[in-house]
Amino acid sequence: MSLLVAVTWETQPWVERFTRHLPDRDIVVLGEDFDRDAVRYVATWGPKPGSLSGLPNLEAIFSLGAGVDHLMSYPDLPDVPIVRVAQDDLTHRMSEYMVLHCLMYLREQRRFDEDQKAKRWNPDRAPPIAGDVRVGIMGFGVLGQDAARKLKVMGFDVAGWSRMPKSVEGFEVYAGDEGLAPFLGRTDILIALMPLTPETKGILNRSLFGKLARDGRLGGPVLINAGRGKLQVESDILACLDDGTLMAATLDVFETEPLPENSPLWTHPRVTITPHNSATSEPEATARYIAQQIRRHEAGEAFENVVDRKRGY
Amino acid sequence: MSLLVAVTWETQPWVERFTRHLPDRDIVVLGEDFDRDAVRYVATWGPKPGSLSGLPNLEAIFSLGAGVDHLMSYPDLPDVPIVRVAQDDLTHRMSEYMVLHCLMYLREQRRFDEDQKAKRWNPDRAPPIAGDVRVGIMGFGVLGQDAARKLKVMGFDVAGWSRMPKSVEGFEVYAGDEGLAPFLGRTDILIALMPLTPETKGILNRSLFGKLARDGRLGGPVLINAGRGKLQVESDILACLDDGTLMAATLDVFETEPLPENSPLWTHPRVTITPHNSATSEPEATARYIAQQIRRHEAGEAFENVVDRKRGY
Ligand SMILES: NC(=O)c1ccc[n+]([C@@H]2O[C@H](COP(=O)([O-])OP(=O)(O)OC[C@H]3O[C@@H](n4cnc5c(N)ncnc54)[C@H](OP(=O)(O)O)[C@@H]3O)[C@@H](O)[C@H]2O)c1
Ligand SMILES: NC(=O)c1ccc[n+]([C@@H]2O[C@H](COP(=O)([O-])OP(=O)(O)OC[C@H]3O[C@@H](n4cnc5c(N)ncnc54)[C@H](OP(=O)(O)O)[C@@H]3O)[C@@H](O)[C@H]2O)c1
Repeated sequence: MSLLVAVTWETQPWVERFTRHLPDRDIVVLGEDFDRDAVRYVATWGPKPGSLSGLPNLEAIFSLGAGVDHLMSYPDLPDVPIVRVAQDDLTHRMSEYMVLHCLMYLREQRRFDEDQKAKRWNPDRAPPIAGDVRVGIMGFGVLGQDAARKLKVMGFDVAGWSRMPKSVEGFEVYAGDEGLAPFLGRTDILIALMPLTPETKGILNRSLFGKLARDGRLGGPVLINAGRGKLQVESDILACLDDGTLMAATLDVFETEPLPENSPLWTHPRVTITPHNSATSEPEATARYIAQQIRRHEAGEAFENVVDRKRGY
Repeated sequence: MSLLVAVTWETQPWVERFTRHLPDRDIVVLGEDFDRDAVRYVATWGPKPGSLSGLPNLEAIFSLGAGVDHLMSYPDLPDVPIVRVAQDDLTHRMSEYMVLHCLMYLREQRRFDEDQKAKRWNPDRAPPIAGDVRVGIMGFGVLGQDAARKLKVMGFDVAGWSRMPKSVEGFEVYAGDEGLAPFLGRTDILIALMPLTPETKGILNRSLFGKLARDGRLGGPVLINAGRGKLQVESDILACLDDGTLMAATLDVFETEPLPENSPLWTHPRVTITPHNSATSEPEATARYIAQQIRRHEAGEAFENVVDRKRGY
């Protein structure tokens, strides 16, 4: 029984990791000769078309990341369970990122950086406190809820928005189309932590930004997107920053990655860019997690974090 | 019974605030004529020598800030209780500041800012997580403990250091001289939240920095001082940044404030400067707090947050 590693980068380190965590299996890779009938599992990120076909005994596909949009767009995806990574270290890193960037806006860190550059001593006697600032988290799943809890400990006024109605203790959760406008209307900092699906593609656009609260304490609405780049319409973000519909944006993900050198986002004074690394998982922990899922499955237990193919996440 | 407002700045707004919160009192100010025998209370910040003398019926002095070093150095300080401000909004703001700056170091925000400036897409696949970073809080009082709790929720490995041994659930607390070296030896990010007293003056110096952990995940020890400027020896900070004893510093307070234009701290690439505003209190809340303390006292209850004059804080 073998595990096929089908990734577009870094094949060899993954082979070594899986060999360590699954010493009783053959770890095989695309482009080399291997027994296709023996392949029971695939671990993959961004598989090339055709690379997952012709595996008659496949039992599961493991996504090497939390998102599975890279698989959902794959033609002829084999009809087996798709298991995604959901790991504490990744979740905690994403919350670090969200708390950091919300606090940078709350505490006007960019202004103080400018002041320092100009050697300007300019204390502000009545800045807002976290409780004065409303954070709205679009995508209130594993990542969104952990960020919400930590932002709340810091004092922020946090609410969530999800596809289906749900109750999460300590938070108001808006849902679906009818929940969107009231959710946006009470939001000063909008955090996007949704999966990319046909429904969410391009959702972060001018029409949505125009519904954000305009009576907040930060001088205008702020967008933080660490979900997926294709959630956002970058031309709308730029235009909205320039006409004041948005005050600022922090983006970890982009329509095209790496972000092309000629993107005006790089140099916009009110845009903060990070290179899609708001939340990475130790590869070691990911390999351990996948080995664990394989053992669970072979012991007759269900996989965890199985993707709902109809929803697309 | 009147309240004397003795501040070096902004006298009039304070008179108005106190008039609102203590409508049954005369609010008087230095430099104008008033009945010295009627003065029962003084609310002050940085009083000029002589300004608190000749008040035979004084019952208490209120510091308009959390620190009282501005009073302790006052010659012939009247022998009445000194009450300092300890308020939730100030405490929460200080914790915002500490979590923000610890996360900026953890998440290498300065590096990503540089990368953005250079249009460099450079994700880092195995950054440390908060749990890999040890924060040490010197001065484990009202402010230090609140920051500790929030930093711990974010995942940091936090310990405290205080003058006297104490037990605080969830934290290892080192104390006094013999606790200092082991405390520093386990610390990657050193937070100073102590009062300025004869014992703490100049404590943040080369000898202390040399005892910080050198095996941490941040590339070297980091100092964050928001206690008082005179805790630090700025020439030592600069020299230690340059020879690698310190990796970086975030300073809210300075030996001389405002920080003089010719200070090399302004332009040092690994120094972050904020203008002594890590934690301000809404003046409105401060006036309300002082009015409350006056009413408590007149109802026969003890003042809260009375300073121990022998300790000096
Ligand atoms: N930038 C990075 O480094 C990075 C790292 C990891 C993950 N991510 C991204 O973060 C996403 C979320 O991860 P997760 O683990 O939190 O996923 P999750 O637990 O599946 O949560 C997804 C959330 O999005 C909501 N959602 C999905 N479609 C929606 C729609 N059409 N309208 C409204 N809400 C919708 C879901 O609503 P329900 O609750 O109703 O299902 C759920 O609350 C991933 O899909 C991935 O794209 C990015
Ligand atoms: N930058 C700003 O905007 C700002 C705003 C507010 C306050 N502050 C500063 O923050 C300081 C702390 O405020 P707080 O409300 O937390 O005060 P606090 O509750 O009195 O706590 C002071 C802490 O420092 C410790 N300490 C005092 N002297 C010490 C010594 N010689 N050696 C070791 N530890 C010592 C105390 O130890 P014990 O527990 O043993 O007594 C206590 O843990 C204030 O004094 C003020 O200077 C700055």
